[in-house]
Amino acid sequence: MQRRKQDEMTSIARIPDTPKKRVVIVGSGFAGLRLARSLSSRNFQVVVIDKNNYHQFQPLLYQVATSGLEPAAIAFPLRKIFQNKKHIHIRVAKFLAVDKDMNCIRTSIGTIQYDYFVIAIGVRPNFFGNRNIEKYALSMKAISDAIYIRNIILENFEKALSADTEEEMALMNIVIAGGGPTGVELAGAIAEMRKFILPKDYPELDFNKMEIHLMEGTDRLLGGMSLKASERSKLFLENMGIKVRLEAIVKDYDGKVVLLDDGTSIRSETLLWAAGIKACEVKGLPSETYGKGGRIVVDEFNKVHGTTNIFAIGDIAIMISEKYPSGHPQVAQPAIQQGLQLSKNLKRLQLSRSLMPFRYAEKGSLATVGRNRAVADLPFGSFSGFWAWVLWLFVHLMSLVGKKNRLFVIISWFLSYFTYDRSFRLLIKPKTRKSP
Amino acid sequence: MQRRKQDEMTSIARIPDTPKKRVVIVGSGFAGLRLARSLSSRNFQVVVIDKNNYHQFQPLLYQVATSGLEPAAIAFPLRKIFQNKKHIHIRVAKFLAVDKDMNCIRTSIGTIQYDYFVIAIGVRPNFFGNRNIEKYALSMKAISDAIYIRNIILENFEKALSADTEEEMALMNIVIAGGGPTGVELAGAIAEMRKFILPKDYPELDFNKMEIHLMEGTDRLLGGMSLKASERSKLFLENMGIKVRLEAIVKDYDGKVVLLDDGTSIRSETLLWAAGIKACEVKGLPSETYGKGGRIVVDEFNKVHGTTNIFAIGDIAIMISEKYPSGHPQVAQPAIQQGLQLSKNLKRLQLSRSLMPFRYAEKGSLATVGRNRAVADLPFGSFSGFWAWVLWLFVHLMSLVGKKNRLFVIISWFLSYFTYDRSFRLLIKPKTRKSP
Repeated sequence: MQRRKQDEMTSIARIPDTPKKRVVIVGSGFAGLRLARSLSSRNFQVVVIDKNNYHQFQPLLYQVATSGLEPAAIAFPLRKIFQNKKHIHIRVAKFLAVDKDMNCIRTSIGTIQYDYFVIAIGVRPNFFGNRNIEKYALSMKAISDAIYIRNIILENFEKALSADTEEEMALMNIVIAGGGPTGVELAGAIAEMRKFILPKDYPELDFNKMEIHLMEGTDRLLGGMSLKASERSKLFLENMGIKVRLEAIVKDYDGKVVLLDDGTSIRSETLLWAAGIKACEVKGLPSETYGKGGRIVVDEFNKVHGTTNIFAIGDIAIMISEKYPSGHPQVAQPAIQQGLQLSKNLKRLQLSRSLMPFRYAEKGSLATVGRNRAVADLPFGSFSGFWAWVLWLFVHLMSLVGKKNRLFVIISWFLSYFTYDRSFRLLIKPKTRKSP
Repeated sequence: MQRRKQDEMTSIARIPDTPKKRVVIVGSGFAGLRLARSLSSRNFQVVVIDKNNYHQFQPLLYQVATSGLEPAAIAFPLRKIFQNKKHIHIRVAKFLAVDKDMNCIRTSIGTIQYDYFVIAIGVRPNFFGNRNIEKYALSMKAISDAIYIRNIILENFEKALSADTEEEMALMNIVIAGGGPTGVELAGAIAEMRKFILPKDYPELDFNKMEIHLMEGTDRLLGGMSLKASERSKLFLENMGIKVRLEAIVKDYDGKVVLLDDGTSIRSETLLWAAGIKACEVKGLPSETYGKGGRIVVDEFNKVHGTTNIFAIGDIAIMISEKYPSGHPQVAQPAIQQGLQLSKNLKRLQLSRSLMPFRYAEKGSLATVGRNRAVADLPFGSFSGFWAWVLWLFVHLMSLVGKKNRLFVIISWFLSYFTYDRSFRLLIKPKTRKSP
């Protein structure tokens, strides 16, 4: 083990040498992928580092977790995206640290030199230091998390068939912490399962006993959206039978009972954690680089403070401006726009031109609550209901990478809509190593 | 642990009492599923026990392993199949043993009484006692196995990018042991990946160095089919650049080098094991019940020898007759036909009528070798090539459970055929428990 670590620190990852400047991008989410796709082969050699060999479409993770989509529909192989692009080198590897003095990064496959280094590794769940919640709650930032949640939810209903009454209630109950888009969308999808599918799948269980709780710490849902959207989404959820509580903070959880800050508690074997995020850790940058929530402080060109050739884009970056005193919202649009802008600025750097500052073009926000119901804040105003839902469908479909994925998602949605079904409720237990 | 085992042995699984006779079926493969679907609610209460909450379509596992289909396309939720069938009780549980004197079985959720017990748990890989092969080779009997193989194959190419030359060759090489339908179909699919996809995905690797070996112990491929099919399939595979060796037996494997019985060896980090199967273990039956390959000896009514109300159907059963002195072939058709026949016989038993013996109606055999190429043995004769391949597609599509799965498979095939792509090459690392 010691020896392997040593090797990782000293060996050099095999990437072809070229006379072109090398841009190393860590992370292939919205920001990193947009940047990599926009960098021209004329100017750059591009190295993309990711733990996974696919780009994942995070906005629809909740549909995988609730059996509405199969994982492959929201994952797209990176190598397919960059087929025939010889200037792009994909490496499935773990990013360990950056050495800004040596202009290199350390990864699980060795060190990699860069001319420009771009950090686009996003965020992870924030449990605010509570080890119990971290241990027992389920969070959802990746496809493997979503599959895991799907399995746990399905497994709990299977167990409920054999459980005693009181226990049974706890197995069926689901508590969601966090009333942002993820929490709201999860709650809506689970309520629809309870209404349309679970009673048919488990005629032996009484689903009147199944409670769905949504806990939000502030005084409204969807804090990033308009007041109207907050109110409408709460109304929609309550009409679906979800117990929404505002100004309610989950204080502790032992895997069986969720304890709230007002001293009340809820029996539940499933606590879904969507109550906070923090930046993924980047080792090797000076401590003054990290801002609020561990985000990396960047200037208006997405350059990391105190460096000359290191950039951060997407959720992990915090760019403070007059209009956005606490940075841009940590959603897809700023990430995509920053990726695109940085590709232009890197080209300008190559041509010794001055850089163009990033200006976020707000396109609006959307959140869906279920069948025919969504809320939308657009530059010209807010609306909700059926047309907001249609807009939500359209925007998400168009944002997916790959025609095949779009086709599979549209068919899955079409079938779900007309059959009231969510057909991917498969409890596929993963095989991680061979049993000898 | 000790305590839990004790509980399992003494507690009673919660299944509603009815005055109807209870049929307990273990396994929901082709045989068990057909039986459960054919038993009428008028006569029986049916309990279906399976480790998984889905039926898996084994003939297409190899396409999941080679990124041609997503897992959900060949898995179908059992609860959906039996929605609104109140006489069917599905329990996701592990079968432990049968107690024929007490008319009950032991499972991971407690004991279950039966009036009729049906064993339909199929077969597992046979490593012929070689612990090394069992430890290092990859076998494929379930969806989780197929996902695992897909991940290993993709991971090996990722690793090859960083490997030294000699090592690199071993990472790219794939050895398949066993020239039955599984081995032949896997070899063909991998050869197509090598030809159409891998060079585009990994322009940095030299795929002329990648070897695909298919080893068969007997003197021909597809031993269960006609001589013509054996010869044609060998020719097809060799034309695709696969090194086919007959009368070659894999003797040992250490995860790096495959050792053959003639003393030669092949460097490969991937040995796919399709060289043999044996019956899954059933505890609690007298030793004279087990026949060749551990299969359970049944009479012409699928009744287990020496019992009055225990039956075995499908791959695990061996019914010896003049025409089939070593039992029926262990493929889908006999399993389906036995399931159907047993449903009729159980009804006859209820009506105190005499049982009808099982007669296997041979419909023929098919195996595909790749794009536009398959071999077919039909009652009226054998043929191969494009029309055999079209027939193969049609038969497999029609045998799938569920319209949604058929639709997704047909679209995946259609897209693959015209784009020469296999788009599910996702290395989704499973999350099995939370990292605290």
